[in-house]
Amino acid sequence: MLSHLLHLEGVESVVIEKQSREEVESTVRAGILEQGTIDLLRKTGVGERLDREAEIDEGISISIAGESHRIDFAKYTGKQVAVYPQHEVLIDLIAKRLSDDGELWFDTEVVSIADHESDNPKVHYRTADGTEGVLSADFVVGADGSKSLARKLITDDGGLRMKHEYPFAWFGIMVNAPQTAPELIYATHPEGFALISTRSENVQRYYLQCNPDDTPDMWSDDRIWEQLHLRADSDTVTVSEGEITDKAVLRFRSAVTDPMQRGRLFIAGDAAHTVPPTGAKGLNLAMADVCALAPSLVRAVKKSDTSLLDTYSERALPRVWKTQHFSYWMSSMLHSVPAENEMSTLFQTNRRLAELSTVVTSDAGRQLLAQQYVGWDFPSIEAL
Amino acid sequence: MLSHLLHLEGVESVVIEKQSREEVESTVRAGILEQGTIDLLRKTGVGERLDREAEIDEGISISIAGESHRIDFAKYTGKQVAVYPQHEVLIDLIAKRLSDDGELWFDTEVVSIADHESDNPKVHYRTADGTEGVLSADFVVGADGSKSLARKLITDDGGLRMKHEYPFAWFGIMVNAPQTAPELIYATHPEGFALISTRSENVQRYYLQCNPDDTPDMWSDDRIWEQLHLRADSDTVTVSEGEITDKAVLRFRSAVTDPMQRGRLFIAGDAAHTVPPTGAKGLNLAMADVCALAPSLVRAVKKSDTSLLDTYSERALPRVWKTQHFSYWMSSMLHSVPAENEMSTLFQTNRRLAELSTVVTSDAGRQLLAQQYVGWDFPSIEAL
Ligand SMILES: Cc1cc2nc3c(=O)[nH]c(=O)nc-3n(C[C@H](O)[C@H](O)[C@H](O)COP(=O)(O)OP(=O)(O)OC[C@H]3O[C@@H](n4cnc5c(N)ncnc54)[C@H](O)[C@@H]3O)c2cc1C
Ligand SMILES: Cc1cc2nc3c(=O)[nH]c(=O)nc-3n(C[C@H](O)[C@H](O)[C@H](O)COP(=O)(O)OP(=O)(O)OC[C@H]3O[C@@H](n4cnc5c(N)ncnc54)[C@H](O)[C@@H]3O)c2cc1C
Repeated sequence: MLSHLLHLEGVESVVIEKQSREEVESTVRAGILEQGTIDLLRKTGVGERLDREAEIDEGISISIAGESHRIDFAKYTGKQVAVYPQHEVLIDLIAKRLSDDGELWFDTEVVSIADHESDNPKVHYRTADGTEGVLSADFVVGADGSKSLARKLITDDGGLRMKHEYPFAWFGIMVNAPQTAPELIYATHPEGFALISTRSENVQRYYLQCNPDDTPDMWSDDRIWEQLHLRADSDTVTVSEGEITDKAVLRFRSAVTDPMQRGRLFIAGDAAHTVPPTGAKGLNLAMADVCALAPSLVRAVKKSDTSLLDTYSERALPRVWKTQHFSYWMSSMLHSVPAENEMSTLFQTNRRLAELSTVVTSDAGRQLLAQQYVGWDFPSIEAL
Repeated sequence: MLSHLLHLEGVESVVIEKQSREEVESTVRAGILEQGTIDLLRKTGVGERLDREAEIDEGISISIAGESHRIDFAKYTGKQVAVYPQHEVLIDLIAKRLSDDGELWFDTEVVSIADHESDNPKVHYRTADGTEGVLSADFVVGADGSKSLARKLITDDGGLRMKHEYPFAWFGIMVNAPQTAPELIYATHPEGFALISTRSENVQRYYLQCNPDDTPDMWSDDRIWEQLHLRADSDTVTVSEGEITDKAVLRFRSAVTDPMQRGRLFIAGDAAHTVPPTGAKGLNLAMADVCALAPSLVRAVKKSDTSLLDTYSERALPRVWKTQHFSYWMSSMLHSVPAENEMSTLFQTNRRLAELSTVVTSDAGRQLLAQQYVGWDFPSIEAL
């Protein structure tokens, strides 16, 4: 998306990606697009297939021990979200960049970044056949995911890496089955959390709260269906069953890097921050980052004015922290967590259920959740 | 209040209180009355002095590192709170009960309660001069505070006592000084929380977050004023100084007993539950309890119908849990707490500040806070 935005303003860039195009286009990850991401894709000419194929949701259900409550996004925010998998977004963006003669170097790994404190940073890379090379650039952006090599240059030089570990994880499955319900269901139950989400009419994505060190072999199909029905069936819904085609454990972590820049090196997306999946924010936050970054880079390249670029981190971080809070809040409110002893565990369970009840039964609570779920306005990408 | 409500319906009761009338009427404790408590005092004929003397607040300020944000109760809820100290409420209630020839036995301690599972429970008491006696009753209510002797009969018999300990406390002072501001200020700052509240035009009550095992001698006057200014001065306010007349450390604890009844014994107020002071809910929750209890007792005594009484605990507990959550939420959002290490502490601090920012800058957030602060509707005390 960043290289696409730069191209729209006439700024050249090279994307270096260690995976093959096929791998990038087939790896299943995030699935929910905020209103800001939908608007961005449409406005920059890559929203056509999204508009044709994506499921648009105007709310979610929160199911509390079998009693379901709808959070109406349309009513409380006038906004929507789209169910459109991350790899489909990537397929559309890659096609667009290639048709615009964009430089996308697949199967090429960045091995180091150098001289980012000078005016002429360099990127050392290695292609699949072992050829090494150096790319000289005006600016380098590390959008290289949660194990970011670019981030290390910032944290090694005094940048902070602030973190939180959660005492639970998600066990996720892909299922060939009809949709359980027209909208996502966030279900909480004394036995734990479950999320009923969808990829398409015939492919469903379900998650169950599990222990961080659970392995897929601990979850037989029978146990999965028993727990899904127990946690997520409600007065209005029965979880639909089918063939399970994938099982995986998803760790829960939060991390934020501050600052998100150093000299002529900038980091964006998972390279800068990780959010737990409960709020469905990872992809959307990466999109918001590059909206804050792109116009600053354009101004720096075209007008040799780096004043906006200097404030990238400052402008990006408030949204990062609000998003971290939302993800943390949804996670804490919906998962059951053992405390020091039985009576403090029971205290937290009852308090949490009272919080949920306050949120889902009041207009203020529903609105507060809805506004954060559909997302805050994106930084403006209008030309300078 | 319970004996007053019973009297209004023609049901006799005896209040047994181990302290003297003077002690009860002079112990400074809670100071904020919810709309429900105000209405209850007015409706039952003990609101006259309150209406004459209490300060009515239509909002609070939340000050975040010196930047103040008003939460407008009137706008978001149409309700108010009153600043009217607990001992003043007690003075008014005691005067009323005595003028109605109510039985208030001061300087009398309950030593044990017996036969509460029978139709004829007994209360063993001892007066100040050592005289022992037994009072036979139809029903016994333990409204005997956080160290409740009545509660023990319930927890010893399988009742649950669910708890949470907080890693901080409040250091509270009374000051002879003019009011700092027309409304309460909840201030958060990297150094910790501070609360600027008032007792009257010339007497102020200030609190500073401290460690649970701090003692008053660790807080010199200089340190107090330095910390109050640092934490609570803002763009609009400077904390007013004066002679400090009282210093005390207030522990933070949450606890809930379930059930709040056993046989013919019922518990209410702090006997059943403790809330931390952040939400100013202790007194108000006790008032709501007796509103749930009084009509049930009246029906049981006058119509020998205990069906309503049987559900007292069930009816009272949802409000107790919502109130616990509100107090916990306010506490967590406003206090700074060290985590496992420096980077997780910084994560929590920034997340918390982002939460506060989301709450104080959105209508939904302000409304959610306001609605809980002014309190939910009280159980109806209309006759049966
Ligand atoms: C298994 C999984 C499931 C997820 N599910 C959800 C979900 O349900 N909802 C949600 O909101 N979010 C989810 N996320 C998070 C979401 O996918 C990420 O937040 C999002 O992908 C961030 O985008 P990004 O471009 O910053 O990083 P990435 O998508 O990780 O992209 C980084 C890219 O950089 C490449 N790269 C890394 N290092 C190098 C190098 N040295 N040289 C060259 N290339 C390199 C990687 O191959 C990768 O393609 C999930 C993540 C994972 C891993
Ligand atoms: C120091 C302090 C400061 C506080 N500040 C605040 C505040 O700022 N805001 C807030 O909302 N809440 C505050 N609270 C809490 C609030 O005061 C209580 O929630 C409220 O008093 C509860 O009322 P209650 O009638 O249930 O219990 P109590 O007010 O504790 O009344 C119980 C009564 O029972 C009597 N008693 C106990 N045992 C026996 C016995 N065996 N025989 C006879 N009599 C007995 C006691 O003497 C006492 O008078 C504070 C509490 C304390 C202790």
